[in-house]
Amino acid sequence: MTHLPDQGPQPGVHDLGYARLDTDRLERTGDAEVVYGAGKTPAQVVELLRTLHATHPSHAILATRLTVEAQEAVADALPSAVIDPVGRTAVVGQPPALRGTVAVVSAGTSDAPVAAEAATTAWVFGAEVDLITDVGVAGLHRVMGVRERLDAADCLIVVAGMEGALPSVVGGLVGVPLVAVPTSVGYGASFGGVAALLGMLNSCAPGVTVVNIDNGFGAGVFAARVARQSVPRETKES
Amino acid sequence: MTHLPDQGPQPGVHDLGYARLDTDRLERTGDAEVVYGAGKTPAQVVELLRTLHATHPSHAILATRLTVEAQEAVADALPSAVIDPVGRTAVVGQPPALRGTVAVVSAGTSDAPVAAEAATTAWVFGAEVDLITDVGVAGLHRVMGVRERLDAADCLIVVAGMEGALPSVVGGLVGVPLVAVPTSVGYGASFGGVAALLGMLNSCAPGVTVVNIDNGFGAGVFAARVARQSVPRETKES
Amino acid sequence: MTHLPDQGPQPGVHDLGYARLDTDRLERTGDAEVVYGAGKTPAQVVELLRTLHATHPSHAILATRLTVEAQEAVADALPSAVIDPVGRTAVVGQPPALRGTVAVVSAGTSDAPVAAEAATTAWVFGAEVDLITDVGVAGLHRVMGVRERLDAADCLIVVAGMEGALPSVVGGLVGVPLVAVPTSVGYGASFGGVAALLGMLNSCAPGVTVVNIDNGFGAGVFAARVARQSVPRETKES
Amino acid sequence: MTHLPDQGPQPGVHDLGYARLDTDRLERTGDAEVVYGAGKTPAQVVELLRTLHATHPSHAILATRLTVEAQEAVADALPSAVIDPVGRTAVVGQPPALRGTVAVVSAGTSDAPVAAEAATTAWVFGAEVDLITDVGVAGLHRVMGVRERLDAADCLIVVAGMEGALPSVVGGLVGVPLVAVPTSVGYGASFGGVAALLGMLNSCAPGVTVVNIDNGFGAGVFAARVARQSVPRETKES
Amino acid sequence: MTHLPDQGPQPGVHDLGYARLDTDRLERTGDAEVVYGAGKTPAQVVELLRTLHATHPSHAILATRLTVEAQEAVADALPSAVIDPVGRTAVVGQPPALRGTVAVVSAGTSDAPVAAEAATTAWVFGAEVDLITDVGVAGLHRVMGVRERLDAADCLIVVAGMEGALPSVVGGLVGVPLVAVPTSVGYGASFGGVAALLGMLNSCAPGVTVVNIDNGFGAGVFAARVARQSVPRETKES
Amino acid sequence: MTHLPDQGPQPGVHDLGYARLDTDRLERTGDAEVVYGAGKTPAQVVELLRTLHATHPSHAILATRLTVEAQEAVADALPSAVIDPVGRTAVVGQPPALRGTVAVVSAGTSDAPVAAEAATTAWVFGAEVDLITDVGVAGLHRVMGVRERLDAADCLIVVAGMEGALPSVVGGLVGVPLVAVPTSVGYGASFGGVAALLGMLNSCAPGVTVVNIDNGFGAGVFAARVARQSVPRETKES
Amino acid sequence: MTHLPDQGPQPGVHDLGYARLDTDRLERTGDAEVVYGAGKTPAQVVELLRTLHATHPSHAILATRLTVEAQEAVADALPSAVIDPVGRTAVVGQPPALRGTVAVVSAGTSDAPVAAEAATTAWVFGAEVDLITDVGVAGLHRVMGVRERLDAADCLIVVAGMEGALPSVVGGLVGVPLVAVPTSVGYGASFGGVAALLGMLNSCAPGVTVVNIDNGFGAGVFAARVARQSVPRETKES
Amino acid sequence: MTHLPDQGPQPGVHDLGYARLDTDRLERTGDAEVVYGAGKTPAQVVELLRTLHATHPSHAILATRLTVEAQEAVADALPSAVIDPVGRTAVVGQPPALRGTVAVVSAGTSDAPVAAEAATTAWVFGAEVDLITDVGVAGLHRVMGVRERLDAADCLIVVAGMEGALPSVVGGLVGVPLVAVPTSVGYGASFGGVAALLGMLNSCAPGVTVVNIDNGFGAGVFAARVARQSVPRETKES
Repeated sequence: MTHLPDQGPQPGVHDLGYARLDTDRLERTGDAEVVYGAGKTPAQVVELLRTLHATHPSHAILATRLTVEAQEAVADALPSAVIDPVGRTAVVGQPPALRGTVAVVSAGTSDAPVAAEAATTAWVFGAEVDLITDVGVAGLHRVMGVRERLDAADCLIVVAGMEGALPSVVGGLVGVPLVAVPTSVGYGASFGGVAALLGMLNSCAPGVTVVNIDNGFGAGVFAARVARQSVPRETKES
Repeated sequence: MTHLPDQGPQPGVHDLGYARLDTDRLERTGDAEVVYGAGKTPAQVVELLRTLHATHPSHAILATRLTVEAQEAVADALPSAVIDPVGRTAVVGQPPALRGTVAVVSAGTSDAPVAAEAATTAWVFGAEVDLITDVGVAGLHRVMGVRERLDAADCLIVVAGMEGALPSVVGGLVGVPLVAVPTSVGYGASFGGVAALLGMLNSCAPGVTVVNIDNGFGAGVFAARVARQSVPRETKES
Repeated sequence: MTHLPDQGPQPGVHDLGYARLDTDRLERTGDAEVVYGAGKTPAQVVELLRTLHATHPSHAILATRLTVEAQEAVADALPSAVIDPVGRTAVVGQPPALRGTVAVVSAGTSDAPVAAEAATTAWVFGAEVDLITDVGVAGLHRVMGVRERLDAADCLIVVAGMEGALPSVVGGLVGVPLVAVPTSVGYGASFGGVAALLGMLNSCAPGVTVVNIDNGFGAGVFAARVARQSVPRETKES
Repeated sequence: MTHLPDQGPQPGVHDLGYARLDTDRLERTGDAEVVYGAGKTPAQVVELLRTLHATHPSHAILATRLTVEAQEAVADALPSAVIDPVGRTAVVGQPPALRGTVAVVSAGTSDAPVAAEAATTAWVFGAEVDLITDVGVAGLHRVMGVRERLDAADCLIVVAGMEGALPSVVGGLVGVPLVAVPTSVGYGASFGGVAALLGMLNSCAPGVTVVNIDNGFGAGVFAARVARQSVPRETKES
Repeated sequence: MTHLPDQGPQPGVHDLGYARLDTDRLERTGDAEVVYGAGKTPAQVVELLRTLHATHPSHAILATRLTVEAQEAVADALPSAVIDPVGRTAVVGQPPALRGTVAVVSAGTSDAPVAAEAATTAWVFGAEVDLITDVGVAGLHRVMGVRERLDAADCLIVVAGMEGALPSVVGGLVGVPLVAVPTSVGYGASFGGVAALLGMLNSCAPGVTVVNIDNGFGAGVFAARVARQSVPRETKES
Repeated sequence: MTHLPDQGPQPGVHDLGYARLDTDRLERTGDAEVVYGAGKTPAQVVELLRTLHATHPSHAILATRLTVEAQEAVADALPSAVIDPVGRTAVVGQPPALRGTVAVVSAGTSDAPVAAEAATTAWVFGAEVDLITDVGVAGLHRVMGVRERLDAADCLIVVAGMEGALPSVVGGLVGVPLVAVPTSVGYGASFGGVAALLGMLNSCAPGVTVVNIDNGFGAGVFAARVARQSVPRETKES
Repeated sequence: MTHLPDQGPQPGVHDLGYARLDTDRLERTGDAEVVYGAGKTPAQVVELLRTLHATHPSHAILATRLTVEAQEAVADALPSAVIDPVGRTAVVGQPPALRGTVAVVSAGTSDAPVAAEAATTAWVFGAEVDLITDVGVAGLHRVMGVRERLDAADCLIVVAGMEGALPSVVGGLVGVPLVAVPTSVGYGASFGGVAALLGMLNSCAPGVTVVNIDNGFGAGVFAARVARQSVPRETKES
Repeated sequence: MTHLPDQGPQPGVHDLGYARLDTDRLERTGDAEVVYGAGKTPAQVVELLRTLHATHPSHAILATRLTVEAQEAVADALPSAVIDPVGRTAVVGQPPALRGTVAVVSAGTSDAPVAAEAATTAWVFGAEVDLITDVGVAGLHRVMGVRERLDAADCLIVVAGMEGALPSVVGGLVGVPLVAVPTSVGYGASFGGVAALLGMLNSCAPGVTVVNIDNGFGAGVFAARVARQSVPRETKES
């Protein structure tokens, strides 16, 4: 648009035209920037991953919300990338030495993509992950059966759609910090995840916090931060 | 209002000026009319109860949503009335021979008024009642502890506020028809019971139906109808 | 995702990779698991139906919300399947001996898919079904004309979109337990079925309960449970 | 507020300080201004009625939404006023010669205030009124019983709260223009009349229009305009 | 679905399999049934139009919400049909002798389809139509310029999207009964027509009624009923 | 609360215990801090006004949302204060030399408090004010009658409740920057000002911006900033 | 539609069949009409631009919300047009001499289209533009780094999606009039921009006004009007 | 209610008639039960505190949401109680040895009650508390001034009403786990805290989780659990 004044380059920013990488975020917050894939072309995702990886070679770089096409482009261009078609993520490089454990618990098969995004994110951000699936509240025996794994985690991520009741049940069983993730799974009066979101915000179990609908990434970042600063389990008093 | 034309009396209606009693509803639907106390004066409640009782002496007449003043007025004027200050109900006369059992399950102390209204209604409409309180989902051992009582009922009424998760948990344990009642207990994003209502409408347990927020009466009518037409337990095949 | 720990098999679960069948639900709740077809490929639907049918050969296995492609794949692979293109369901195997009757009443032509899903579900779950269509409230003579069929049922399912008024009208005519199903039929301020849902929750007819928008399946499960535990009509007192 | 500039008087406006009367509205639209009593003191209501009556001595002047105190003040100060405590209205002066008939139909006892406001308004604005109460959809025989009165009207006002289904039923019976008025009667998911409003906007009966919640006044103005311009009944072809 | 009982034919209903025509609605309400085209195939639309036309040869039969394909199919099969691609309607046969006038006023170019549907409907239901377009409130001189045409009508239909302010402006100018139609034109916080709907329900001009978003058909039916029962203009007193 | 650590004083903050005055905001943004009276006791309002006035003796200090009791306490304690009971404001000290003109236009009598708050705020923040009341859209002649005053302003504040249509009408008449203020005046589907807010956000007149419901203060600040930086009228080219 | 009466041409309107150009708007409000491209064909956009340009040869004519196809058609037909694929705009002709400066600030890469639409609009309507991108609140150093550019503007447009917090941060830094534009960027509980809209309406920084979601055009018109009537910077007192 | 069956005592429950204390929750989750004061009489609060204190003499017992009357009753009956009138809490007994630090940050004076409830809860649940008030986003220098205190905490609680932007700003400054608490402070389109809630759920800063509106208690429980399991600061690597 020729009528607008030019802007010179800004220090500390890698300008790719369609995006500007905040290359010193790592120093500021301890975590490198992430590629949010929604609305980006496969070629852009590849270039962003490559640039961030070159800037931070000793960290893992995460890309989320990748289309199938973007996943294929990454697999072609960056053979060392770990790609998860369920969670629609790609990871380039190795995460730091893992500290603490995040247990990711999900209610139904349809919640798997969000749970996988949360799990991969927690891992990239430096925590061990224990993935526990298909423990819906309508089958309490499954929840009971994993109680020890829940109790052993430093932070829990509980993923559920529809009525979003699982965090209340899990939160009543153990005293571990719990992040609830509502998913958009459901129909009719689920209103794209609003029913689950409201259920989780109103949980009768104390110590439950909530992130945005389908926001596995945010839950993963938060839980990894909690887990990696936790006292090792064997020295913890419960 | 003198400018409006007079209307002559309508057959089959007892006109008290401030209300018209549908005195042949009993024949039409099998159940007598009920006094909905909200917005009525104590004197009106007393007169309505007395009139309906005189019309249907062999049935129990129910009044709901009574203020403390209305409860006292009924107690003074109709000494045989059974008054429940928790559920804010009054009953005059004897219910029919009870058939079948309705179990009324509630999550928290604050849900007690709605549970009591449901219980009294189910009893007035002809079912035995088993009242089970304080079985919130954040303490699963309590739910487990009453599983046999749940399974023995012909219809369940499950009352819960906040996230409204109890029906999903109960509905996953037993195959009994289940009516869920959301209550307005909660604050903030509970939106006066909307969170619980949405949770129940989206329950992952099949066979859950829902009534309006705080509508213990409606659940009681429905459940009594289911229970009293049920095969006696001993002859039932499950 | 290679960075996540392996999970060994769980007892009582048939793991197909993309789904885990709860093969002992039948024992726990008296009803076999159902294939919810939304989001599944035709091949997955076929495999799930085949597996559940093999596990429970003496029961009917239901699949719901099938795409046209999934219906064709089932018809090809499982020739004995009963497929209903209106209700988008498939049934493999024979339901148990039918007990009691569920009347499924719908308001308009566009509500037919939800009514059909409810009808097939009630039948698979063990009840006789009487399907009554096109009895909208704007043509009361049609409602009046089927009053005897309504009164003869053990449980009613009333399906309506738009303003959702039919349950109030039917519920004022007969004293049979009534489950209302709002549909997403409508436009503008129907908000995808919310208007009908609210109308049904606020019904002035006592004894009306409600399920989620378009949830014919849930209504069918509930109504079949009520109907099959009911005293046979000839011995009932109304 | 001394810092603001003075404004001289505006022609055609009677300025009382707390309100400005639009004294030539009568000429512009054929109807005199009305006193909306909400938020006004009893003394203000009296003065406004007296001023408008003096300006338009040959018309009826209406005041709506009057508190009990305002009704008493009007009765004391203007003994000829017709006061309706149910509809909370006062009328001073005689309406014009009545032309056409408006039938005001209401569903329940609690809807009476809105129905009365609509009826008085229609009368003040020049139509005969036929008030038909207590014809809820849960008792269809009552609706059927007044079908001839409905059919004889030039315009219908149908008032209902809760699910707001009455306009659909009435609109399916007769072809008279029908204005539906949702009321705030109800609780829980009625959301202060929103359920009834949505129900009416989505009515499956063609030819139903709707006004704001509890807006008996607006419905009365509209219906009177329709009725008073209608061909006399005896010469009408239906 | 072979498991469901057959239903014999119902008297007074023409069953086409995918729809049942209410062939005696004309006698009951004075207006013939209409073909609502949404969700119907072109072949179904043609068959329905042909059947209704054969049943009521002396009336005009209306089809609404037709796709381009359905419009072409009707044009091919029924050459005498009047097809309006803007309003997406088709009309077969002649309307009755027109009585009274409906003025259809619309705010913007994008509101044209709804205005055209309203206009055609009013004409089919028996009223003269005066179509007045592009008179948005942001250009008051246009509204002022058509004041006489507005005043000459027996009923007004005012169609507007976005903020829906036109009915308030028009309703303040003339005393003619006014039906407001909100349209889904707009974006962002227009919420698909909700902003316009709320604006119209809260209009400060008395005598405004409202129909559902984009419901030009409903407004047309209502306005035609008002117009055709009106006293001819020359004998009217305003 | 003795268990919490003490906090020493913060530079540039005047700590009154129940509030901390930001005493250098004047330097930062050019405008002194304001006393928001909601939730404060009369004594607190007096002390805050006195403290801010002492800190900034050459500016006007504004207090908003004052209860009647707070207005009386200010009048007693600070006799030089200018108190406006309609807008519920008090002003101590003299505003700076006024530059530019803000016209405050309101639709109905009930909108007067919000209009007065906006007017006083604009004056305190340094603009001349032209207050124009009672120009609702249902009486267009009033709007037309003030067109020149509207056109002469440097910024317009247009205040309206109910459907909020006035900004669209005014914004179509003149090209002056226009800030719209929705008020909570209305009932039913006005939803406490939401209808007016949505109407204004969707205005078809370009160049309309909006503030929160009843936020006369915010509109006044904004408009004064626009007006006082404007070229004097005589030198402006339009 | 042959059944509707013909309308003769209206003076001062250029009728293209599918649209009527308001060719004297320029005189009335000082700004020429704009082509809103949504829903128009490429050929229509070209013809509208050409017609308006011919009518107002000495002004810039703006077209907004152009599809890629429309942009290409304009580029082919009107080689002198300035086309911005990011903001989806086209401009034909030269804007007037620019007066004053509008700074357009945006939070994230995804907000670029709305920011570009605002920038081009402000330029076409006669203001200099300073475009400042990628200054999200999660990186405060970027906001701080542009404080002088913010302070130098005559009006600010702040564009943000998600939580919409940027206007509060910017509005606390400088005292320049600020128009906030919420964008539909986000997912889940952002509800298509509603979260950002509400955040901006509730901004704790005084002097923030808001336009509709994604309405860069409206913000540009408003800000240009403010900027072009402002005193030149060098003579301003701050 | 004599018609309902008696229930014998349940093991592990202390039944006070109006409430049942879950006396072994401490063992199950590591934290004792809390007295939620809303809806309880002063006498009930005193008895509950006394009973829980007697059961767990070596723990601190917390009561929240106390009315002024309940605070006075506790002060009279339990002189050793620590009562906070701002946060409306009372604490009896000593908390365990404190481990880790929770920083509670609030935006405005009106948010103080929620911040105080969060602070007291975190302390009772075993964490050191650093309370930082009045750091609204409209005054960024205050946020910057406390950056080191923020960075030194093991978990942050950020409390804000209105637009709820503070968590985004704080979350962009430091990498500490952050729990956001929306408050109901605001008016109009804040919708009782919904605007702040949505803002926080959509925060662009990664690692932000959210609790219900005004739920300082829940945030305090969660944050204390995170803090008390954290590695001591001196040994942490960031």
